[in-house]
Amino acid sequence: MLRRLKTAVCQANLALVEHGLVTLTWGNVSGLSDDGRHVVIKPSGMSYAALRPEHMVVVNLDGTVVDGALRPSSDTPTHLCLYRHFAGIGGVAHTHSSMATAFAQARLEIPCLGTTHADHFYGPVPVTRVLTPAEVAEAYEAHTGRVIVERLADLDPSAMPAALVAGHGPFVWGRTAADAVDNAVALEAVATIAKATLALRRDAAPLEPYVLEKHHQRKHGHDAYYGQAAPDSPNTDPQGTL
Amino acid sequence: MLRRLKTAVCQANLALVEHGLVTLTWGNVSGLSDDGRHVVIKPSGMSYAALRPEHMVVVNLDGTVVDGALRPSSDTPTHLCLYRHFAGIGGVAHTHSSMATAFAQARLEIPCLGTTHADHFYGPVPVTRVLTPAEVAEAYEAHTGRVIVERLADLDPSAMPAALVAGHGPFVWGRTAADAVDNAVALEAVATIAKATLALRRDAAPLEPYVLEKHHQRKHGHDAYYGQAAPDSPNTDPQGTL
Amino acid sequence: MLRRLKTAVCQANLALVEHGLVTLTWGNVSGLSDDGRHVVIKPSGMSYAALRPEHMVVVNLDGTVVDGALRPSSDTPTHLCLYRHFAGIGGVAHTHSSMATAFAQARLEIPCLGTTHADHFYGPVPVTRVLTPAEVAEAYEAHTGRVIVERLADLDPSAMPAALVAGHGPFVWGRTAADAVDNAVALEAVATIAKATLALRRDAAPLEPYVLEKHHQRKHGHDAYYGQAAPDSPNTDPQGTL
Amino acid sequence: MLRRLKTAVCQANLALVEHGLVTLTWGNVSGLSDDGRHVVIKPSGMSYAALRPEHMVVVNLDGTVVDGALRPSSDTPTHLCLYRHFAGIGGVAHTHSSMATAFAQARLEIPCLGTTHADHFYGPVPVTRVLTPAEVAEAYEAHTGRVIVERLADLDPSAMPAALVAGHGPFVWGRTAADAVDNAVALEAVATIAKATLALRRDAAPLEPYVLEKHHQRKHGHDAYYGQAAPDSPNTDPQGTL
Repeated sequence: MLRRLKTAVCQANLALVEHGLVTLTWGNVSGLSDDGRHVVIKPSGMSYAALRPEHMVVVNLDGTVVDGALRPSSDTPTHLCLYRHFAGIGGVAHTHSSMATAFAQARLEIPCLGTTHADHFYGPVPVTRVLTPAEVAEAYEAHTGRVIVERLADLDPSAMPAALVAGHGPFVWGRTAADAVDNAVALEAVATIAKATLALRRDAAPLEPYVLEKHHQRKHGHDAYYGQAAPDSPNTDPQGTL
Repeated sequence: MLRRLKTAVCQANLALVEHGLVTLTWGNVSGLSDDGRHVVIKPSGMSYAALRPEHMVVVNLDGTVVDGALRPSSDTPTHLCLYRHFAGIGGVAHTHSSMATAFAQARLEIPCLGTTHADHFYGPVPVTRVLTPAEVAEAYEAHTGRVIVERLADLDPSAMPAALVAGHGPFVWGRTAADAVDNAVALEAVATIAKATLALRRDAAPLEPYVLEKHHQRKHGHDAYYGQAAPDSPNTDPQGTL
Repeated sequence: MLRRLKTAVCQANLALVEHGLVTLTWGNVSGLSDDGRHVVIKPSGMSYAALRPEHMVVVNLDGTVVDGALRPSSDTPTHLCLYRHFAGIGGVAHTHSSMATAFAQARLEIPCLGTTHADHFYGPVPVTRVLTPAEVAEAYEAHTGRVIVERLADLDPSAMPAALVAGHGPFVWGRTAADAVDNAVALEAVATIAKATLALRRDAAPLEPYVLEKHHQRKHGHDAYYGQAAPDSPNTDPQGTL
Repeated sequence: MLRRLKTAVCQANLALVEHGLVTLTWGNVSGLSDDGRHVVIKPSGMSYAALRPEHMVVVNLDGTVVDGALRPSSDTPTHLCLYRHFAGIGGVAHTHSSMATAFAQARLEIPCLGTTHADHFYGPVPVTRVLTPAEVAEAYEAHTGRVIVERLADLDPSAMPAALVAGHGPFVWGRTAADAVDNAVALEAVATIAKATLALRRDAAPLEPYVLEKHHQRKHGHDAYYGQAAPDSPNTDPQGTL
């Protein structure tokens, strides 16, 4: 079942490796089926070198495996939580990419210091609170998703497609699995530049709000003029949600 | 039209990727036609993997598309502004390369701390002022070009082929599209070394002015003796402007 | 003799290079035979480009060469010391990977600042004391092994598969030669992220102990649910020692 | 003439690129003929992609070109000065590798903080003084060589095969062109680790002198036991000078 989605999710997982965001087996990408009823995800702890579409695991939104011979990623409950709460997303990526993870470990949001950031993330990339002992003891991965949802309560997940889990690392989402990977690539680049900026100038000022607004709107707004006006581009997204 | 220039500009865009200066689709290179009437530039938001010469867009100096099926880079007005004001340049490159962008975000010029810098940039690489809300609201990209031109008012653009737009990133130029890319590569290397130098010694002294002068002259002056005396080398540039 | 182990050890040495942990010839991996009586190790100072299984050297646990035409790695006595003292290990890797070596040179343990660390190392990665002049003068490499063993006295080498030798660099071990290499890769990644975290926040807090415990247990404990339940996976290790 | 040396020098120049030490055309390697009368060196400002043995330029020790159609590297007088003054060297490499150049720009020697350093450089890697205006105005490149020789006056160039020219970058030498490149690779790695060590601990202590002595002797001394006892290895160098 879902052969095309399995292929897309497999490719998205391999794209994480090509972009240098993965060490060993640390990372996973999932994608949501068009009807919103199933999620295709990478198997747990499997080497990327051997990954093929037929290894992908299909689960429903409560986590039951409905297709696939392997155990799904141990982070599956986190992915599912995000799909259930963030309307309009179709892909989720999780990495331990070095610089985004460093901000997560320092428990510092990634400040919006320039237009590179503004093109992808509409404001500082938020950090969750630390999970409580009770949340870690019981349904740890599901609670990881819940603290992300909790942190995004006053944010638009289509304009802020990433969060840093304190002491852990980034979770990133998008319209599709491939889009989530692009956002994960952008996040690591933005974190790298932010870290270097702060090393040069500890008190670097945030980008002026009117420049942030401009860059967000020219790429993601209703009158967006960045990119080509192709049918599947975000610029022509009829709902304007992403 | 302009088939040779399209090929050269396409190659220059791909060279940005080979040199590791591009993340996702962030970056673009353009080239000026020999008669100075047209500019060939990368299409907006297009993946580098699929980029071919026939995708290049031809615009005239007021920005009207005269050839090509795709929308030109959203940064086209910035490129055009530089071609109109900087005599003798034939190529422009824009990247979000990490270390040059970090200086732009910190709103710090890149100080000239060594001969690597002096070989390519005749003094500190300047940073523009921040655009005003009015400049961002109306013709943002054209105003981005204008603040660069404004900042270069007392500098020779052939001796200082780069500027950092505050809160944004580097724009770089040269005699040709390929030369602009070389200068973008040099800029990122120089920024990387400068950042490391300042990490080792916050009060690192600038290069002695007489060493800066020597390195600039031996590579770019009338009696230059760096490189080969080939017909197309800068050393034999009859105007001595670049 | 030990042809399969020679192949595995040769591949593990080449994997160090593929993972970018090796500069010039700095690094070596060894593996223990199933009967625990012989160690297969890389020859000393040999270029990786030419390395083949038949170049591997076989020594017994007191260091006598029993097979192979080349001189074994000068670090062989260190490896042998670890095999003699750490029950259950089957591979040892030594590198001068940049960030782990920086912690060793700074003589600082790598603090456990996040779950990336907790997934591989159960607490801060320890640093040995400096060897005395007498220990350096006589049997230097064997004493290097002994200060590691001394430092691990109150730690479980299966839960803490690495140590930093002060002023030198990391030694890493695992169930097999390949597993030791994976742990060396993880160590360098963890050191890289830790250094970046400390640059962002000098007083970054260690990971909450209950999260460290959770991540260690979900990957290495008796009820581990990370990875696939394959016959050769650590999750099904009958002794539970590694 | 000197066909084998031209091939070796060409390969050594290309090895600089493979090791990631070269940006654009910044770098050059030379080699001395067996009779010590000629030096083979890279042509000036030439692209590495097109470099072939027949492009190499042969000069005698006073700098006169005796073979080759191209202009020799502008740094040739620096190389020649080192060959004239440092007995036993057979190759010289010059790069602008980022971290070694950062120390040169910060005008700080690279302290010996660990055994990685001690294996290649017998103590801190020295920095020259700045050249005077008169030295820069007249025979700049030759004077660059002279300040290196001046700085090495109390050091053994076979035990300290590198120096940082203040505000410029590293010059490195060795028994052969290939050996000079290996030392340039080691220098950049050592500078990278030293910078990271100092970032972790500004007051990091130098390696204990008895450990420095041990590592130098086990690799380079008369009773060296690192590497294989091959006829062309440094361990069997009959003069013991390198």
